[in-house]
Amino acid sequence: MVVLDYLLQFIEEDAPAGDVTSDAVIPDITCDAVIRAEQDGIIAGLNEAGELFSHFGVSVTYRVKDGDTVFRNDSLLELSGDAKKILLVERTALNIIGRMSGIATQTKKMADIVSAVNPSCHIAATRKTCPGFRELDKKAVTIGGGDPHRMNLSDGILIKDNHLALVPLGIAIQAAKKGTAYKKIEVEVETPENALFAAKAGADIIMLDNMSPGQILRTIRVLKSEGLRDHVIIELSGGIDENSLPRYAALDVDLISLGLLTHSVRNLSVNLEIIPHNIA
Amino acid sequence: MVVLDYLLQFIEEDAPAGDVTSDAVIPDITCDAVIRAEQDGIIAGLNEAGELFSHFGVSVTYRVKDGDTVFRNDSLLELSGDAKKILLVERTALNIIGRMSGIATQTKKMADIVSAVNPSCHIAATRKTCPGFRELDKKAVTIGGGDPHRMNLSDGILIKDNHLALVPLGIAIQAAKKGTAYKKIEVEVETPENALFAAKAGADIIMLDNMSPGQILRTIRVLKSEGLRDHVIIELSGGIDENSLPRYAALDVDLISLGLLTHSVRNLSVNLEIIPHNIA
Amino acid sequence: MVVLDYLLQFIEEDAPAGDVTSDAVIPDITCDAVIRAEQDGIIAGLNEAGELFSHFGVSVTYRVKDGDTVFRNDSLLELSGDAKKILLVERTALNIIGRMSGIATQTKKMADIVSAVNPSCHIAATRKTCPGFRELDKKAVTIGGGDPHRMNLSDGILIKDNHLALVPLGIAIQAAKKGTAYKKIEVEVETPENALFAAKAGADIIMLDNMSPGQILRTIRVLKSEGLRDHVIIELSGGIDENSLPRYAALDVDLISLGLLTHSVRNLSVNLEIIPHNIA
Amino acid sequence: MVVLDYLLQFIEEDAPAGDVTSDAVIPDITCDAVIRAEQDGIIAGLNEAGELFSHFGVSVTYRVKDGDTVFRNDSLLELSGDAKKILLVERTALNIIGRMSGIATQTKKMADIVSAVNPSCHIAATRKTCPGFRELDKKAVTIGGGDPHRMNLSDGILIKDNHLALVPLGIAIQAAKKGTAYKKIEVEVETPENALFAAKAGADIIMLDNMSPGQILRTIRVLKSEGLRDHVIIELSGGIDENSLPRYAALDVDLISLGLLTHSVRNLSVNLEIIPHNIA
Amino acid sequence: MVVLDYLLQFIEEDAPAGDVTSDAVIPDITCDAVIRAEQDGIIAGLNEAGELFSHFGVSVTYRVKDGDTVFRNDSLLELSGDAKKILLVERTALNIIGRMSGIATQTKKMADIVSAVNPSCHIAATRKTCPGFRELDKKAVTIGGGDPHRMNLSDGILIKDNHLALVPLGIAIQAAKKGTAYKKIEVEVETPENALFAAKAGADIIMLDNMSPGQILRTIRVLKSEGLRDHVIIELSGGIDENSLPRYAALDVDLISLGLLTHSVRNLSVNLEIIPHNIA
Amino acid sequence: MVVLDYLLQFIEEDAPAGDVTSDAVIPDITCDAVIRAEQDGIIAGLNEAGELFSHFGVSVTYRVKDGDTVFRNDSLLELSGDAKKILLVERTALNIIGRMSGIATQTKKMADIVSAVNPSCHIAATRKTCPGFRELDKKAVTIGGGDPHRMNLSDGILIKDNHLALVPLGIAIQAAKKGTAYKKIEVEVETPENALFAAKAGADIIMLDNMSPGQILRTIRVLKSEGLRDHVIIELSGGIDENSLPRYAALDVDLISLGLLTHSVRNLSVNLEIIPHNIA
Repeated sequence: MVVLDYLLQFIEEDAPAGDVTSDAVIPDITCDAVIRAEQDGIIAGLNEAGELFSHFGVSVTYRVKDGDTVFRNDSLLELSGDAKKILLVERTALNIIGRMSGIATQTKKMADIVSAVNPSCHIAATRKTCPGFRELDKKAVTIGGGDPHRMNLSDGILIKDNHLALVPLGIAIQAAKKGTAYKKIEVEVETPENALFAAKAGADIIMLDNMSPGQILRTIRVLKSEGLRDHVIIELSGGIDENSLPRYAALDVDLISLGLLTHSVRNLSVNLEIIPHNIA
Repeated sequence: MVVLDYLLQFIEEDAPAGDVTSDAVIPDITCDAVIRAEQDGIIAGLNEAGELFSHFGVSVTYRVKDGDTVFRNDSLLELSGDAKKILLVERTALNIIGRMSGIATQTKKMADIVSAVNPSCHIAATRKTCPGFRELDKKAVTIGGGDPHRMNLSDGILIKDNHLALVPLGIAIQAAKKGTAYKKIEVEVETPENALFAAKAGADIIMLDNMSPGQILRTIRVLKSEGLRDHVIIELSGGIDENSLPRYAALDVDLISLGLLTHSVRNLSVNLEIIPHNIA
Repeated sequence: MVVLDYLLQFIEEDAPAGDVTSDAVIPDITCDAVIRAEQDGIIAGLNEAGELFSHFGVSVTYRVKDGDTVFRNDSLLELSGDAKKILLVERTALNIIGRMSGIATQTKKMADIVSAVNPSCHIAATRKTCPGFRELDKKAVTIGGGDPHRMNLSDGILIKDNHLALVPLGIAIQAAKKGTAYKKIEVEVETPENALFAAKAGADIIMLDNMSPGQILRTIRVLKSEGLRDHVIIELSGGIDENSLPRYAALDVDLISLGLLTHSVRNLSVNLEIIPHNIA
Repeated sequence: MVVLDYLLQFIEEDAPAGDVTSDAVIPDITCDAVIRAEQDGIIAGLNEAGELFSHFGVSVTYRVKDGDTVFRNDSLLELSGDAKKILLVERTALNIIGRMSGIATQTKKMADIVSAVNPSCHIAATRKTCPGFRELDKKAVTIGGGDPHRMNLSDGILIKDNHLALVPLGIAIQAAKKGTAYKKIEVEVETPENALFAAKAGADIIMLDNMSPGQILRTIRVLKSEGLRDHVIIELSGGIDENSLPRYAALDVDLISLGLLTHSVRNLSVNLEIIPHNIA
Repeated sequence: MVVLDYLLQFIEEDAPAGDVTSDAVIPDITCDAVIRAEQDGIIAGLNEAGELFSHFGVSVTYRVKDGDTVFRNDSLLELSGDAKKILLVERTALNIIGRMSGIATQTKKMADIVSAVNPSCHIAATRKTCPGFRELDKKAVTIGGGDPHRMNLSDGILIKDNHLALVPLGIAIQAAKKGTAYKKIEVEVETPENALFAAKAGADIIMLDNMSPGQILRTIRVLKSEGLRDHVIIELSGGIDENSLPRYAALDVDLISLGLLTHSVRNLSVNLEIIPHNIA
Repeated sequence: MVVLDYLLQFIEEDAPAGDVTSDAVIPDITCDAVIRAEQDGIIAGLNEAGELFSHFGVSVTYRVKDGDTVFRNDSLLELSGDAKKILLVERTALNIIGRMSGIATQTKKMADIVSAVNPSCHIAATRKTCPGFRELDKKAVTIGGGDPHRMNLSDGILIKDNHLALVPLGIAIQAAKKGTAYKKIEVEVETPENALFAAKAGADIIMLDNMSPGQILRTIRVLKSEGLRDHVIIELSGGIDENSLPRYAALDVDLISLGLLTHSVRNLSVNLEIIPHNIA
């Protein structure tokens, strides 16, 4: 995991041929700067921002750390160094902190809703992330108290409706188990009968997709009657939002995955203020 | 601009070591599939999605085109090819279409608000995009009827408050003009006086940042009184939202840049349904 | 998973500035060629070799397929195309087939030894692969009938002795379970007591490292007495070779991981013969 | 030659999305560690391993150096630094040292066999290396006392049987000489007649491929009778193994190339032991 | 703008598998070195050369700076460090300095010719640069006192004859203006009529291509008569050389773009001399 | 050698974010185009230009081939395809053809001068190429009838004055010979004595650097007197230009390397003309 290269491509994206304004306008001077929150929320992305500034020789002081609750006007990072380098990194750093903090804030809010009604239930992210930013979207979910779920298609076995349109459920589970003993097998089902079938066939996680609370209750009852409830993890998925979340969380389920954590993100506002050195 | 490589890195992100589920579960068969909208909106990202499927040998039929208004359940793309390839690209394609359409839909809405009150005023994006997805965020703004503004720090000269904290306005404009005659020079100002100063110094675009409607009116009056209003483009910027937008658009301004177009995105929901070939 | 780019870097390695011999010596002609086995074994790597030749416009006919048993002098691939392109890919293709087939052959031999004495036990690879070739080393193990085990450090949780030198076993397992519910947790232990502790703490897989058959028997007995044997997967590891393998496989264990599958590889010999077109 | 990037791709291969176990389990602490040999042999790859640890901020002390003979339990590298960084690099470093030392050990053994019977004869590697690891396979041969031979197809002119199936020998040599005066021209032949022809045509190196000792003797006699023996380098090639090596080395030849140096590698076993800092 | 990576690819080009001579011949010693001019001229490329040496751990002292006038035998850079690293970078550094200084020297000469006859006229580069070296070719022009013009096709709008062969002038300008308000629009014309048309249609820059001085005079007269001369920038282009330059510069024009600045470059000669440490 | 990727980076350089002019101005239409010479010369780079157009789906007809003598207004390539794709590749293709043809033309001129006075003497390039374009600079030299010399520092052993400032000549040659038997060893010397020493020590090529014709004659005489002239290749180097070339070529030498072939290049002028399809 060569994190720095991953981050530097974002600088490359914002400055493929340098910063033509600063190059033309700013002399070779040093200055200070401070990054502040413009809204309350859970902060995330500070390490990534800091690593970028450091890479360009800017010294960084962390006033808060990832996962902290911050308030409007709180100082987050204090910077000191070459003015052009601070300006080069500014927007990329703010964009990273803004999006990751937006996700962490939203995740924390949803996680709190869930734990209030069912402390043993957790929320999880999906793969509905911004292309090119997956790793940091997932990290922001973790910082906000959510489970990142699988990172990508290589990272875990999840047999979904589109697989089952092509292969019968039993054959799919058997094929997945045969490939490797080292990964959990998750199966998406839409009926109590298929949930039971999957549990009997050895699925580790049963994702109940787009089921009503009533269907979910019925599914759990069926699994319990066969003595299988405790052998599987139950995940809910599909269109659950902030309003419906408490009702679902109150059921005897282990995980609720929420696309909205990463597909409908409102960045937390943060800004960077330059502080010239030669203020008398 | 080698677009395909740009898009393939998103596949790489979602499948760094392949799709372990499909590889284990799905035989070497072909199938059809359809991508449908789950919400009304302006569609974008179809070309990128289509190019990815094509790259992996999947044949693509476009039912609508970028910029079209679509409605819930409309078919967008119809696919036919190797099942594993369709499943490999599925999530990346949906994420691209989802985010770009979300941006295009939001942009269209804002552009309509503006043109209703002031047909000669346009909205523009900012650089507050998702790192790694800048190019497509900007393209989605264009599809939705907005001006993409500068793509990155190399792409245009914009002297902002943080530059002016370090260099006097006059010197900054002079330095920028000296570097090249081929780029417009934009200056961010916060007072009518500085707006006038910038216009006199030869700025092409004056960005009035975080000014109240009253301040903006005063600024325009000052510029007009000096015969400079028609020699500059006036852009408004800073915290304008859907509610305040009509009020600002009604002023005699040319552009309103809106961070919310790309920093607070709600993906348009789209899905992909596999259709097996051997349905009797 | 952009397989072709992965393979093309091997061509780049073998021809960073082209094939100076063929460029100087060979005219622009076409020819045929055949790749043959020089030894008996299980063949692997044909798809990768074929994909490379195809990329350079050489047409490929597969005479056998990955996983087939082949014998000395068997034709594997038949090629037809530009002579210089065939010669450009020749050595890279042979090296890929040679190493992958060597691994598949060795894996099959070990897997057969194990299944002869314990059909419910499987062999697995380790991460002791050749740097730069991990993905194909693992694939060759799968082709030979082994379990690839985790692909890399991002792909699965395995708490080893070096982790436990720094963190107590119970805390380590608890921390791993807290991070995500979607991955199995494997723990390496060296005593029956720690095996029991790990099983109670919720480990999914217990790796018994460098234990004697007697210790392993004792461990299984302890787990059974607590009713935990069937809740965990038991993997043996550490210095097991072809001679000792049957003795270990006869125990009531699920997996035996063997470093020798990939760290001591004898390539299967294969060659490529050019067949000129104008033989009268 | 940007060596570090070459090595970092191996870390990327082993940790494409980080080390999920250490990230979850290990706190931010420092520790020591030692890499030890588990077998006797010639050590190689220490610089590469050390460079990787250094890149991640781990301090490295070399107890032996590349090319040294080491014995079981010898300490090779001593490390001190961030525990998670040591664990991140561990397996990649061991794999590099293991393979390179295996090659160096094997090369040294073969080189000693040859020099015992013919001090003016040397052994050389072939291009039968592991794809992705060519540079280090070749370096290990050099460390073990062998000649690396050409690195790749761009690096030297070697006219082989597959070229000669398409172009007559004389024309091939002439074409190769015409291209550049700066490279030696090597020709693979299978008969004394062709060896003589190649020498007369100006080949610098004659590779006698798969010839019996009797044929080789005859070839040398023919070359001597024409006064050409001292104008060419004679290389033997083709299926020579440890047993037949002394017999071939005893002939009046300059080089013997051995595929087995790199296509049949038994890694030298090495391990890394973590030593916690706070041991009382 | 990750400059170092850009520069390192030039090292990679010159040493894809290391420096085989120095690796074989030079021991692990340190030395000094000096880079000197062999001709008079304007120096450029020192920062790039210095950055490369620094990256490889060589300490660098700058004796002059980019843009300075230097004379034969002047010392430019003084180096101290690992001998093999200095030799590794030598040729790449000299090639960068040589080409960039050649361009800067030529640019300065042309700029001086122009400013002598028309101080308000400037010279500009074109995109006729060496592929792979665009960024530094343009930078050298800036150092020599020229305007770099647009960096690439993404960087500015220039409607040329080949566009106008396909689209009428008016439609082209209108389309360009509609896309974005942030970029100047330049149009290449070959007649006074089209110049006037373009100016009226809102072009910011009019490039008079391959016009005779007489035609240019007529064009300016037409523009003035319509009161448009001061609303546009006038650029001359097309086959102007050192001899004809003063005649064109004397006209009332703003810019003269010269392909010769970068398409006909005579490198400034520079050399590097190694100074051993142990000279008594 | 993945040539296409090498060429595509030049497109990327000229269009990092696409061609903003054509994207805005040109509709989705097809057209024809022709590339013509504007000067007489030896043409080169057509294959590279053609490959780029082909990659973007433009069909290409070659009217001449690399190495042909062309005259002003000759048609070189005829193109047909998507107008925007032709315009995207235009400048890159012209820059490649322009520079390569400039080099080939210059090389041919120098080669003709040499062969007129000494048919057995050849000219060679140096490593004084444009960074980023080395491979094509060298190829252009070959097309013009010159020897490319070593491609880079990995490609051949050349012991130069800067090496000999650090290591005695005899030791350097011995070390170089010990490393590998497969590469020629070239040594740069400045006196007849050292030339003799190098020849005796086994150098394959002696580069006489910056010697006067008199010194060169003396060197050859010394080598002949020792019977070594025919065992070595003699190369002249250092500041030889078109005027002095015949004098040096008349000596009994094998090679003359000329930095000017690539460090002082005057591009051959070529242009591209768009031909609309719908001309009535």
